[in-house]
Amino acid sequence: MNGAESLVETLAGAGVEVCFANPGTSEMHFVAALDRIGGVRCVLGLFEGVATGAADGYARMAGKPASTLLHLGPGLANGLANVHNARRANTPTVNIVGDHAAYHKEYDAPLTSDIEGAARPFSDWVLTAADSRSVSRDGAAAVAAAMAPPGRVATLILSADASWGEADGPAPLPPVAARAPAPPETVAEAARVLRSGEPAVLFLGGPALRGPGLELAGRISADSGARLVSQTLSARVERGAGRVAPERLPYPVDAALETLAGTRHLLLVGTKPPVAFFAYPGKPSALSPPDCEVRKLAGPAEDVVGALEALAEELGARGTAAALQAHEPPSLPEGALTPERAAAAVGALLPEDSVVVDEAITASAAFFSKTRGAPPHDWLDVTGGAIGVGLPLAAGAAVACPDRKVLCLQADGSAMYTVQALWTQAREGLNITTIILNNRSYAILKQELANAGAGDAGRRALDMMELDRPALDWLALARGMGVEGGRAKTVEELERQLTAGLHSEGPYLIDLVL
Amino acid sequence: MNGAESLVETLAGAGVEVCFANPGTSEMHFVAALDRIGGVRCVLGLFEGVATGAADGYARMAGKPASTLLHLGPGLANGLANVHNARRANTPTVNIVGDHAAYHKEYDAPLTSDIEGAARPFSDWVLTAADSRSVSRDGAAAVAAAMAPPGRVATLILSADASWGEADGPAPLPPVAARAPAPPETVAEAARVLRSGEPAVLFLGGPALRGPGLELAGRISADSGARLVSQTLSARVERGAGRVAPERLPYPVDAALETLAGTRHLLLVGTKPPVAFFAYPGKPSALSPPDCEVRKLAGPAEDVVGALEALAEELGARGTAAALQAHEPPSLPEGALTPERAAAAVGALLPEDSVVVDEAITASAAFFSKTRGAPPHDWLDVTGGAIGVGLPLAAGAAVACPDRKVLCLQADGSAMYTVQALWTQAREGLNITTIILNNRSYAILKQELANAGAGDAGRRALDMMELDRPALDWLALARGMGVEGGRAKTVEELERQLTAGLHSEGPYLIDLVL
Repeated sequence: MNGAESLVETLAGAGVEVCFANPGTSEMHFVAALDRIGGVRCVLGLFEGVATGAADGYARMAGKPASTLLHLGPGLANGLANVHNARRANTPTVNIVGDHAAYHKEYDAPLTSDIEGAARPFSDWVLTAADSRSVSRDGAAAVAAAMAPPGRVATLILSADASWGEADGPAPLPPVAARAPAPPETVAEAARVLRSGEPAVLFLGGPALRGPGLELAGRISADSGARLVSQTLSARVERGAGRVAPERLPYPVDAALETLAGTRHLLLVGTKPPVAFFAYPGKPSALSPPDCEVRKLAGPAEDVVGALEALAEELGARGTAAALQAHEPPSLPEGALTPERAAAAVGALLPEDSVVVDEAITASAAFFSKTRGAPPHDWLDVTGGAIGVGLPLAAGAAVACPDRKVLCLQADGSAMYTVQALWTQAREGLNITTIILNNRSYAILKQELANAGAGDAGRRALDMMELDRPALDWLALARGMGVEGGRAKTVEELERQLTAGLHSEGPYLIDLVL
Repeated sequence: MNGAESLVETLAGAGVEVCFANPGTSEMHFVAALDRIGGVRCVLGLFEGVATGAADGYARMAGKPASTLLHLGPGLANGLANVHNARRANTPTVNIVGDHAAYHKEYDAPLTSDIEGAARPFSDWVLTAADSRSVSRDGAAAVAAAMAPPGRVATLILSADASWGEADGPAPLPPVAARAPAPPETVAEAARVLRSGEPAVLFLGGPALRGPGLELAGRISADSGARLVSQTLSARVERGAGRVAPERLPYPVDAALETLAGTRHLLLVGTKPPVAFFAYPGKPSALSPPDCEVRKLAGPAEDVVGALEALAEELGARGTAAALQAHEPPSLPEGALTPERAAAAVGALLPEDSVVVDEAITASAAFFSKTRGAPPHDWLDVTGGAIGVGLPLAAGAAVACPDRKVLCLQADGSAMYTVQALWTQAREGLNITTIILNNRSYAILKQELANAGAGDAGRRALDMMELDRPALDWLALARGMGVEGGRAKTVEELERQLTAGLHSEGPYLIDLVL
């Protein structure tokens, strides 16, 4: 058994069932090991950002890490933007990055670079496997590091000779760190604040936006009158009819300030204090009011659900009925196609138990709002703000949930960063309907130019924001990668296309011309 | 005048005429400054690797740096693979990376990351501009750092508040470091070795592969009998009829060892010692024979041309006639389409003064060989081995040389990494003919799996190397981004398509089905 084989067997034994890969020469022994050792499904991407974004989407839905397989420093670099998103999502992530044989590095061959240095700014845990006999132990440690709360990015660098050298066998998964419970005094203090009658907000993230955590937050809110507000961008939100429906903190600074205006107490539940996405001249970075007291109930890595349970217990709210979202999808819209009408069509037609990936950018707020009363579904955001995660995220979510429909709301400019993901969607026959919000521009930048007070845009500035010269032909791009689709220029066409997509097997792309 | 305006004016004053950009919110003041300050042409890419690869191609041909404009850590990361190639090409590079306002960083907003940390492994010079008044001076220092021999990667991080704050005005370019001359004893020792009559090789890179450097190497070779061998992957080689034609060290280790077998003295001229691209079990990393003495005449950052002049002088070879490549293009081939016949067709039809970008990977050797006797042209390689530079490199070269024809020999798997470059080619109307070598596989990996001794490939391993499920439709992809083209399945069709492409205005893509 060689090092690569011991690693694949270790990963399989630790529950890592999928490897999203874009391998090169230095990873050939790992690839060969996938043939000989069962238990790890390998999904090929034609660009590394597809692999890392898909690993993020997979783990958000599967609740356990996938691995990636990347080729030296440049291959890792190509994947880092979506590793950044995964890290901000607290997604457990195991990156395996091939490197030259250890003895070869001193020769400074063309592909040589400082891989640890490149990995570190985007990883919580980085290790170069010492040799072929340590690889399995190092791999098991990587999985445990990734699974440590709240979910972390572990990057294991695997020299070619550590792959091909002799190994002893797989290693067991070491104990995974547990979430720390909230101290009783923290819970008591939170209860005191909520009982004070002063305006309070539970600011929700992570496990507080799903399952029992969300349910408990709803009971606490119903009991205490505290508002529920979720962070702007979340890894995974369970929402729709029959679920507790927090407000979402808006992205624009002024709207966010307005949402939190008057709040005297803000309790952090599985997230960090609310901050502006960007700085703007003359606007604050912190979004809670200056006289608001911000307290932590449970941080992202702590036992969020346990803390909510304890708080509900303390308040006597465990039996209180939470306010639940009614099933009230929007009616099918009529008229010319606008982002709002497109969003209403999606809200009207969204199937139960679907997974929605939101990289709609400027159209996101409309889609989020119009799906509030749709059947229950999961919602996945661009957590780190690094655009180009939508199509890969959808691919990973679909690999994790083959029986669910994935709907990807995808802005056109952002889609181009990792457009190669369409090929993986076709190759794996993934059950994804993508709506390309084709406004032929980086529309967000036109807004941001004004927000930043950078003055009026002249021709050269507009040239950096307009994508209509030439216009992208999205159906041609999709067909080029084996994905069928159709175009929608009217509300009626969108409804027809959406119905076709949602009922087709495998991926389908709708070019929604705005 | 704000910081961004002072920076744009500084860049223009320092001769940076082009900015390859993919901006975001934090770069809006820089974008606005491009409107108000003349002298810097801004070329938009839909992915950051397009911008960095194009900046490399531009500078290789223009002989001076372009700048890039990138958006925070993830935007930089997306560009780093091609920054790696640029660094290995010794290409002068000025990366400008926007960041949050300095005061905003402590809030750890979603897009926050350690940008300096991400830049450092791939840069020779990294600086975060201190404030708006220092930006112009820092920008001028970045340009000087990039232009320091042999050509370096400088990365300047520009906080949003350093862009929008008050500045005093542009800064002048500080003195640029000069190339150090070769010491007389080094030249004398080289001459002694060449006069010894023992088998010698001048191992050429950088300035020794172009203009007077190449010419002098030819004279020295003709005088001394030393062989001329170029490094495998070079930033820019001037070759074809009427030029000195060194052998090229082959990529496969066994062929490289054979090329250098029997060499007693190897003189490094503008490059480093020859090493294997990858390590393989049981094969050496160093490619010169064990009993070969390796000596430096001039390193990449030293005065390579001056050292060759001094050596020619010492040998009395300045007037010796160099052996020049005859004009002997291959005849137009007939028969079924193979890489060799495709290469012969290119050799037969290559126009004078064209620029060839070679990301042909497994087909590269055939194309290099069959164009040896073609009319004079420039040849650009994937210097750092990070695939996905071909299409962007061609775009940058075409921006630098609007009056020359650029021919891009592009493997299909590699093309997908930065396929977005086709859109920039269409937008700018660039004079580029791309031949997609469509073998529906990572063919190099099939070879490397065997080279690495990783055993026979089973189904799962082959799935990581075969791109035929689904097959990419290259004409659809090109059309989707506004690039016209045609398909060639026979030698005759290739000749027709190549003629059409070379005579068309703007970009043209040939899907060469192998």
